[in-house]
Amino acid sequence: MTQLKITEVALRDGSHAMSHQYTVEQVRNITKGLNAARVPYIEVAHGDGLGGSTIQYGLSKTDELKLIEAAVEEADFSKIAVLLLPGIGTIQDLKEAHRIGAKMVRVATHVTEADVAKQHLETAKNLGMETVGFLMMSHMAPVDKLVEQAKLMESYGADTVYAVDSAGAMLPYEVSEKIKALRDALTVNIGYHAHNNLGLAIGNTLAAIEHGATRIDGSVRALGAGAGNAQTEVLVAVLEKMEVETGIDLYKMMDLAEEVVAPIMQTTQEITKDSLTLGYAGVYSSFRLHAERAAKKFNIDSRDILIELGKREIVGGQEDMIVDVAAELAQKNQVTV
Amino acid sequence: MTQLKITEVALRDGSHAMSHQYTVEQVRNITKGLNAARVPYIEVAHGDGLGGSTIQYGLSKTDELKLIEAAVEEADFSKIAVLLLPGIGTIQDLKEAHRIGAKMVRVATHVTEADVAKQHLETAKNLGMETVGFLMMSHMAPVDKLVEQAKLMESYGADTVYAVDSAGAMLPYEVSEKIKALRDALTVNIGYHAHNNLGLAIGNTLAAIEHGATRIDGSVRALGAGAGNAQTEVLVAVLEKMEVETGIDLYKMMDLAEEVVAPIMQTTQEITKDSLTLGYAGVYSSFRLHAERAAKKFNIDSRDILIELGKREIVGGQEDMIVDVAAELAQKNQVTV
Repeated sequence: MTQLKITEVALRDGSHAMSHQYTVEQVRNITKGLNAARVPYIEVAHGDGLGGSTIQYGLSKTDELKLIEAAVEEADFSKIAVLLLPGIGTIQDLKEAHRIGAKMVRVATHVTEADVAKQHLETAKNLGMETVGFLMMSHMAPVDKLVEQAKLMESYGADTVYAVDSAGAMLPYEVSEKIKALRDALTVNIGYHAHNNLGLAIGNTLAAIEHGATRIDGSVRALGAGAGNAQTEVLVAVLEKMEVETGIDLYKMMDLAEEVVAPIMQTTQEITKDSLTLGYAGVYSSFRLHAERAAKKFNIDSRDILIELGKREIVGGQEDMIVDVAAELAQKNQVTV
Repeated sequence: MTQLKITEVALRDGSHAMSHQYTVEQVRNITKGLNAARVPYIEVAHGDGLGGSTIQYGLSKTDELKLIEAAVEEADFSKIAVLLLPGIGTIQDLKEAHRIGAKMVRVATHVTEADVAKQHLETAKNLGMETVGFLMMSHMAPVDKLVEQAKLMESYGADTVYAVDSAGAMLPYEVSEKIKALRDALTVNIGYHAHNNLGLAIGNTLAAIEHGATRIDGSVRALGAGAGNAQTEVLVAVLEKMEVETGIDLYKMMDLAEEVVAPIMQTTQEITKDSLTLGYAGVYSSFRLHAERAAKKFNIDSRDILIELGKREIVGGQEDMIVDVAAELAQKNQVTV
């Protein structure tokens, strides 16, 4: 088996949970600990990637380039990665991140929109960066669609293609089926990124590894969006019990989680009513507030709206349909508006 | 498939996490919610079962019989269950719990000591109660030993035999193997009780169900010892997605977790350094303080002691061996004492 390589995402996915308020000092301290524990890759960026600091996606306290620079300075073993969502981040942002020392870029698109990653992956490749195609909301695509899009990523030069369970909505049998199909169809590395909204981040990650994923995301103390990611130190412990080599020092990861990360978290990671609802419905977290407003207007339960949106596979940009769905549900319930 | 039946344990296993400080009012409110959500069984007792309120195991704020009585009064659908560890609880405690309305007893022993449950299970059977043999620390026994002990429980009249992952130390393949072996060897119901110390409470529970377990434990908001149990409302959501019928109202469970249980918890459930260490080592939580004291004395890491105790399968009652193990490890490390 290829050596399993873990990417730590607390300094990027965790940016959501920190309301994008990371300071240079925090990033330095966490990077120092991750580097000492010999984590292969550390992703550093706004939660929505390079250029994400906007009114729409949340303003960062600190310019992400300063955070990336600080991480690069602290890491003499770990490689610093960045995330880029085409449309939010630009080729210019990518070049800038590369200039200040980012060694890997993960170009993220909705699972059906791999084609928008072409130019960014090719540019990264030309810059000599390691490249990842990051297929978000992978639970929304049937296996053949996922494979088709992954092959596009591969054709654009991705060294690794990830199935990303952005909403924490996948079940182990589904992970097994999808990762196996990707493993069979592609020649590049297969990766898996979990969220814990259904309590399955570790269980699903094990299923992914069993079926051929060799690149895995984790976040120390589960510091990530929603109910958090696969908790890195827990994953390392489980893999040690299974005698799967990660190269990561378990005790150092545990101490980092307890002594450096836990004290700065704005809230502890639990599976709450909101995060469970998003995982159960399989929708974007940004739909929640829209659904709550619509639920109030039509006097129905916002969970019914979110579940219906999930069934209809509504994606970002279609938020105006939320009110229509709410109206339909209210009519079905024979509630007088 | 036999109908899956969930036992809610937050009012018993959660008693540990509440430092045994449950009030009658809290038990009433939670029972009311669980009953409305149509949870089949609700276990109510001190964390260490009937008679557990002692200086050794922690004194309860409220007499457990008063808590059981309150739960019985509030539950017109759910059946109230009690836990009994022979040696801590007595036949007299069992009769008293039955008299005030407990319908099911779970007689718990270490996985290799089922024989001490004989008298209690037979008495419960004669009283007309539903009976469960509850094999704690099931990760410590190889499959054939577990099956042997489970058969003893069956022969004493247990209607259900549980594999109990007390330390949250089991991995999915191990759960699959053990539950399958129990299912093949026994004619009674098979149950599974998870802890989340390795982040696998939900994943392991799905593996157990897949291999034949039809009785499952959960705790609302994961309120239980260590890193908590399989979070009931999360489990119900996952099972609904899998179209496995539990009879439980998902929204009511979610609302109960968020509005009634979360606000009274002393701390949120996370996987901390301590709970992860216990799951990784596979030892009793009561060993932790002993190990920390010994670690200080011999200037070694308490985690090394706990992991060594796990390897040697030290059980409760053998705490005096902890210092010996620490001394040996220190010598190996060539540390001057």
